[in-house]
Order: sequence, then C-alpha cells, then structure tokens
Amino acid sequence: MDSLGDFTRFGVLTVSDRASRGEYEDHSGPAIIGFLHEAIASPWETIYQIVPDIAGEIEGALIEMVDEQLCSVIITTGGTGPDPRDITPEATESVCTRMMPGFGEQMRAISLRHVPTATLSRQTAGIRGRCLILNLPGSPKAIRETIDEVWPAVPYCIDLIRGPYIETTEGQWAAWRPPHARR
Amino acid sequence: MDSLGDFTRFGVLTVSDRASRGEYEDHSGPAIIGFLHEAIASPWETIYQIVPDIAGEIEGALIEMVDEQLCSVIITTGGTGPDPRDITPEATESVCTRMMPGFGEQMRAISLRHVPTATLSRQTAGIRGRCLILNLPGSPKAIRETIDEVWPAVPYCIDLIRGPYIETTEGQWAAWRPPHARR
Amino acid sequence: MDSLGDFTRFGVLTVSDRASRGEYEDHSGPAIIGFLHEAIASPWETIYQIVPDIAGEIEGALIEMVDEQLCSVIITTGGTGPDPRDITPEATESVCTRMMPGFGEQMRAISLRHVPTATLSRQTAGIRGRCLILNLPGSPKAIRETIDEVWPAVPYCIDLIRGPYIETTEGQWAAWRPPHARR
Repeated sequence: MDSLGDFTRFGVLTVSDRASRGEYEDHSGPAIIGFLHEAIASPWETIYQIVPDIAGEIEGALIEMVDEQLCSVIITTGGTGPDPRDITPEATESVCTRMMPGFGEQMRAISLRHVPTATLSRQTAGIRGRCLILNLPGSPKAIRETIDEVWPAVPYCIDLIRGPYIETTEGQWAAWRPPHARR
Repeated sequence: MDSLGDFTRFGVLTVSDRASRGEYEDHSGPAIIGFLHEAIASPWETIYQIVPDIAGEIEGALIEMVDEQLCSVIITTGGTGPDPRDITPEATESVCTRMMPGFGEQMRAISLRHVPTATLSRQTAGIRGRCLILNLPGSPKAIRETIDEVWPAVPYCIDLIRGPYIETTEGQWAAWRPPHARR
Repeated sequence: MDSLGDFTRFGVLTVSDRASRGEYEDHSGPAIIGFLHEAIASPWETIYQIVPDIAGEIEGALIEMVDEQLCSVIITTGGTGPDPRDITPEATESVCTRMMPGFGEQMRAISLRHVPTATLSRQTAGIRGRCLILNLPGSPKAIRETIDEVWPAVPYCIDLIRGPYIETTEGQWAAWRPPHARR
C-alpha cells in the first residue's frame, strides 16, 4: 500500500557543550532518530545537528532548519534544566512566533510519573512559520517516555499550521486526527 | 427559597470567522448558555456575541463586555488552536491585567483524558477589572467536558475580585467556597 | 553518622497585610519552619520575615535574602490568589532571572486533589543567582500537602545552580538525585 502522507523533513538538534566538542558520543539525537524510524510511515528525512549551549548557536541552528531547510518538526534534546548554562527553552522561545504551553506541561506530568525531579525541566514548545519546535529531555530514556506519549498530537498540529500530512505506524505514538482531517 | 446570590451578567463570546459571517450556525455559544441555565441558581443574564478571528474585534468585544456591560465572567469559545488564524489567547492576554495559569493547565489536563490533541490547545484565563475571562475549547462536547469540572472554582474567584455572589445548582459544577466565604 | 551535606540558609517569607501589622499570629511561616525541622538532615538555619502585600516590600525582602543573606532556598507563603492585593507571583518573577514553570503546575495539580479552587492559585517559582524562590499556598494545611510532594526535587535543583548539598531525612520529602550526583 502506498503511503497517503507527504514527504516531511525533521530537524533533530542536540544541545550539549560536551557532545559538540566531541568529548562524548551523543546518544540523545540518535534516540530521537530511532523513534522517527519506528513511528513515521510517510516518506521523511532528517537534518541532525549538535550545537553547544550558546544562545546564538541554538537560535541560528533552529532558524536555518526552519527557514532554509524547511523542516516541519524540530525536536531538540538537552539544555532544559535549571543549570545556568541551560538555555534551550529561552532560545526556542526567542525564535518562535507563538508558544504551545501544553507540550511542556504534559511532558513534565509524564516524566513526574518516573522521577520527582521532572519538575525541574523547563522544556517548552512553539511554532515558527510552518514548523513545530519541541524541547525534549536530555536522556534517551526520558526522551522515549515523553515522545511516545505526546507524539499522537504532533501530525494534526502540523496539518493545522499548513505543513505536510504525516502518517504514523501503529503504536502508542499513532497520530490522532478528527475524522474530517483524515485522508 | 429565595436565592442568596446577587444578580450576575455573563458574557459569552464565540470567536469564529465562519460563524460570524453566518456560514454556519454557532452551536458553541448556545452550549455555554445551556450550561449557565443548568448551573446558575442566582439571578443572571447573558450578553452573547459572535466575532471573527480578528484581534481588534475580539479585544473590542471583551473590553466592551467588561467595561461597559459590566460582565463578571466572560466565557469565550474558539480560536485557541495552533492555526495561525487562532488568536483568542493572545487577545485575551492583551486585555487582562493578570493571568490565571491554572485554568489553561487544568482544562488541557481534563481534555487529555478524552483526546490526545488536547495538548494543542493554547487556552488561557485572566482577570480584567472585576471580571474573569475564560477561554473554552471550540466544540460543544469539549466545552461541557471542561466547564463542568472547572466551574466549582469560578464563583469564589469572582468573590475574591469583588464581584457578585454567584450561587450554583447541585451538580458536578457546584461552587466550592471556604466556610468563611459562604453566605 | 556525620552529615554529608553542606550548611544551608533558608529564607521563609510570609506575605500578609494583617500578619505584618500584628493583627493575627502567622501560622504559615512557622509551618514551613516546622517542615524544615522534619525534613533537613544537613546543618541549616532560617531567616524568617513577615511583609505586607506591597510589591516593593516583597521584592526588597527577596533580594536581601538572596544577595546579602545568601539564602539557597526561599519559601514564600501567601499572596498568590486572584485578589487584587495578591502580588507575590509578580514580585517573585520580577526578582528572578529565570522561571521554573514546573513547580506552579505541579503544586496546583497536587492541591486540586484536595480542593477545586486550587486552580485559582497563581503560585510560581524561579531562580535568582544561586537561590530557588518557591511560592507556597497560604494555609498551613495546603503548605504541607504541597511541600511534602515537591521537596524531593529541590536539593538537586540547588546542586545544579551551584548551591550547597542539602541532605534530607527519610520521608515523602526525601531528596532524589541521579546516582552520579549523590555524595
């Protein structure tokens, strides 16, 4: 059966001083790409980048991924804690034209079922142009705990901001759309 | 038994381009008015209006309902999603002097029990003068799922901002007040 | 057994017009200090102050507690409701360099299990320098309901902002840290 979905470009942005200097191997970006392999049924590709915890670098990467590489969803990992070096939420907000407070709330509530320090995450989400930018936690384990559960809302969000129709595989992450919005 | 409550004016504001042009009949505003008929035991009346998704029109209607028509609670429906046309939360925030983050959080959490795309709602609430402005979802079904559960907090909120004493009927929506605040 | 923790100074700030004028005895500040006696195993002391609901007084007390008295955690009580006199969240935000939205969300969700008007609380939390400022509800009962459950995240938060290592006693409030962060 051919896919009913459109081609989609995803951005995956790991924010980490040490991973960007090559001091350790990034496992978080690959965990997100692994999720996409499992969850996305329509044709897609990924732009994957690692940047240090520097506002200009994070913002520059996000802007390029949206404005030039035409990503429809960008998923960041890292830099959302209380550490003064953690500035991913601020960088995200600074490039977005509107915020989506539900994602941060829901992801903190999900993570709280696993660890009490989930409260400390300042992760957020917002929209720039036709792209949803989503901050995920830093650890591969926390990434899957949250993305599996929030993903069902993402494809319909992209429909509403005039992006491509994203099809998903069966699983906890399967897209939900109101009947009138289904192909 | 005579009511112990004060006369209250409620504003009901449907935000929808198509309903405002008469392209379809608004069922959401009437669903809110239906709720008020069921829930409010003290004397009340409603100001009901439909406006398009235009910032100036939404803000103008809200300001008039508070400043001239002296509404104590305004309930909006529509315009809270990620669609670039959806600007009800921004218009609400722009006319309020303080925000009440708990309502948006609680309503998204309630709606998430029904549909995973509840995360996409950007609905909020805030205070202008002696009036609480509350954004509800757009569909009559989602309206009742949320308003039934958040309403118990509304009458005491209006007490605290020096508005009328609102009495409720028995039901899931029955007002809760600390003992010292009950008549 | 000697404590592995560092000396920590806590600020306790009761915000109340009437308590600050001596019209009634403050029970909320003492409830917080009582919690600290029960929960903290490493050496500590408290700076305790009562201020009226006046922006400059709240902000001045918070700034002095952080910048001069070097508190690592400040816990406020009172002034977080919708009443126009309630301005503790605004005063908190105005002295913080970054906000921690998870605490307000989690505390409202906790309090909602006890009383439907928990939605009305505008309590927040944020960071100034190496200090976490946390708004708690006003009543001693609501204070314990919330602090017992959010406290496990606080000591690791202070680690991350380069503050002292706070040790806790056993109980619902026991600190959680990832293994690499434990002494």
